[in-house]
Amino acid sequence: MKIRVGIVGYGNIGRAVEKICAGDRDFEIVGIFSRRDKQALHSPFCSEFFAQNEIFDERFEGKIDIAILCVGSAFDLEDTAVKIATRFCTLDCFDTHARMSEYLKTIDTANKMCGTLSFVGMGWDPGVFSLERALLSAVMPQSQPQTFWGKGVSQGHSEAIRKIDGVKYATQYTVPKPEAVESAMRGETELSAREKHERICFVVPGYAKYYGRCDVSEEEREDLRQRISTAIKSMPNYFADYDTTVNFVSEEEYLAKHTQAYHAGKVIAVEKDMKCGCGKVFCTGEKYGDNPPCKAGKVKNSAEFRLELDSNPDFTAQVMTAYAKANYRMWKEGETGAKTILDVPVRYLFQGDSLQFV
Amino acid sequence: MKIRVGIVGYGNIGRAVEKICAGDRDFEIVGIFSRRDKQALHSPFCSEFFAQNEIFDERFEGKIDIAILCVGSAFDLEDTAVKIATRFCTLDCFDTHARMSEYLKTIDTANKMCGTLSFVGMGWDPGVFSLERALLSAVMPQSQPQTFWGKGVSQGHSEAIRKIDGVKYATQYTVPKPEAVESAMRGETELSAREKHERICFVVPGYAKYYGRCDVSEEEREDLRQRISTAIKSMPNYFADYDTTVNFVSEEEYLAKHTQAYHAGKVIAVEKDMKCGCGKVFCTGEKYGDNPPCKAGKVKNSAEFRLELDSNPDFTAQVMTAYAKANYRMWKEGETGAKTILDVPVRYLFQGDSLQFV
Repeated sequence: MKIRVGIVGYGNIGRAVEKICAGDRDFEIVGIFSRRDKQALHSPFCSEFFAQNEIFDERFEGKIDIAILCVGSAFDLEDTAVKIATRFCTLDCFDTHARMSEYLKTIDTANKMCGTLSFVGMGWDPGVFSLERALLSAVMPQSQPQTFWGKGVSQGHSEAIRKIDGVKYATQYTVPKPEAVESAMRGETELSAREKHERICFVVPGYAKYYGRCDVSEEEREDLRQRISTAIKSMPNYFADYDTTVNFVSEEEYLAKHTQAYHAGKVIAVEKDMKCGCGKVFCTGEKYGDNPPCKAGKVKNSAEFRLELDSNPDFTAQVMTAYAKANYRMWKEGETGAKTILDVPVRYLFQGDSLQFV
Repeated sequence: MKIRVGIVGYGNIGRAVEKICAGDRDFEIVGIFSRRDKQALHSPFCSEFFAQNEIFDERFEGKIDIAILCVGSAFDLEDTAVKIATRFCTLDCFDTHARMSEYLKTIDTANKMCGTLSFVGMGWDPGVFSLERALLSAVMPQSQPQTFWGKGVSQGHSEAIRKIDGVKYATQYTVPKPEAVESAMRGETELSAREKHERICFVVPGYAKYYGRCDVSEEEREDLRQRISTAIKSMPNYFADYDTTVNFVSEEEYLAKHTQAYHAGKVIAVEKDMKCGCGKVFCTGEKYGDNPPCKAGKVKNSAEFRLELDSNPDFTAQVMTAYAKANYRMWKEGETGAKTILDVPVRYLFQGDSLQFV
């Protein structure tokens, strides 16, 4: 039986999710629910478009197994998600780390009232990287896993800029600071957000649309650029805690240079200078002879998980659709509530006994 | 409440598990169950020793929450594990990949009959690497994750050699072939076990013990070396499918050079030349413009999970004890049967709400 999918939102991620669902015989696309003008939308897979609120129509009751939420997370997702979770199982890649636990609770309440199952934060970070951080901190209890993003385009941060009034196009590059990566590799963990990354933004202002006329003076243009720059740099969670550079470029330059979707990231965990809880006898790194000398402090165990993605939205959509299958399987077994990737056994990503343990 | 642990076996891993349990207030060591002569055993943590079979004594009934099985897996573990799983929850790092599914079934039957929960194959490979392979193959469905081990000492393979009659000491180094690693990084997946690794063994024969006398002729020595070499190279699963080199060294050289416990490994997943299931329209790596050109075949997504361990037994014991806690929590919730790392949500590695999702 196919998993009947409603895709909510039709930006980069929505289109990537559609592409995967259209090519995977486990899925059937019921429709794409978007707030954009239907006439302006085109699906290469002949998916049917509906207004976003039409998902609450009676005709979809019991007809959608999971709503995959692909709306920009910064401003739109929270309200949309809670409403939809009262009707359908949902999956999203909500990425405001600082609001995560509150968001989870809100969704969970909706789920529990209505018998639905929601998977939250199912991208690569949060998502796959969350799983890696948790796993490594458990099996390397004397480490503190460090995360680095980039160099690459953050869809969430770019989207957050695009929501600012007066912005026509925007791309945000997250760049890890090399000295911070080296420090983490040595097992040092005292790095602030600001010390680890910088955020570099390329923005095309939409002067005419903002002022509602074509004859915009240079003074007005400068004023809009200042507003946008201030709005970006003061945005909590997204930019306020980072060294942020805002570059204004022409539409031509933007379209030529800043429309790619690559990204990268790594999680690093290092245990060193292991605390020796046992006097002078059994320490990590000893030779396990009959009377081994104490070698605490001389050994190092390190782990690294690394992603390099030519297409961030495609990879995010791959994570989302893989976990959409898991959502369906867990829901069929009677699970309800809001879950994260930490709550889902990897086994559920596979059909029945198709996964051999090796 | 403390988790009451019985440690079965007192080799490298048993001692590493003891060290962690002794230093972690969540655990209480009930005893160490070993087949070795009690008089010859010494615990730096004053753990009490018992004969291995004493674990079935009435006095331990209901007194052990989990038996952590640290007996050499190649020959001893299977029988021991099944018997103990009829009485207690168990956890092991069984590592004979080829026999895994049969082993799982046997343990599961014992568990289901007796209401116990067993975690099987909970080391770093199988174990952590199994989780990475499964996760990556699900979220990168067009990749085939490749695993490389080494350079480093394989405890399981060294142990397998030590079980051969006439072997006094033995260490096996697993060495990945550099050209194979490069090939995997390029996304090529058609590599056999033999093409990926070589196995290099350093062995000290115990001539006097083997022949039961001190005056062993050079001819007899050569004969024993031949027997050992043949026994190693023909050992199924462990050595038969690999280029294996056996070096015989003196006891002095062995103790000076080959008693370390470092290991390393990596799982590599690469998606490239992505199949374009959608004609010329939406392909991975496209720029998501209005009329994006097809770029199938030009993009690459890659993931790598890497471990570098100064002490393999210590890290293995860290994985085992982390999952021993998960076993206790799942069992308290009524779970029974044989599970692998793929069946256990990472959430269970943490107490209650101590794990924030980020």
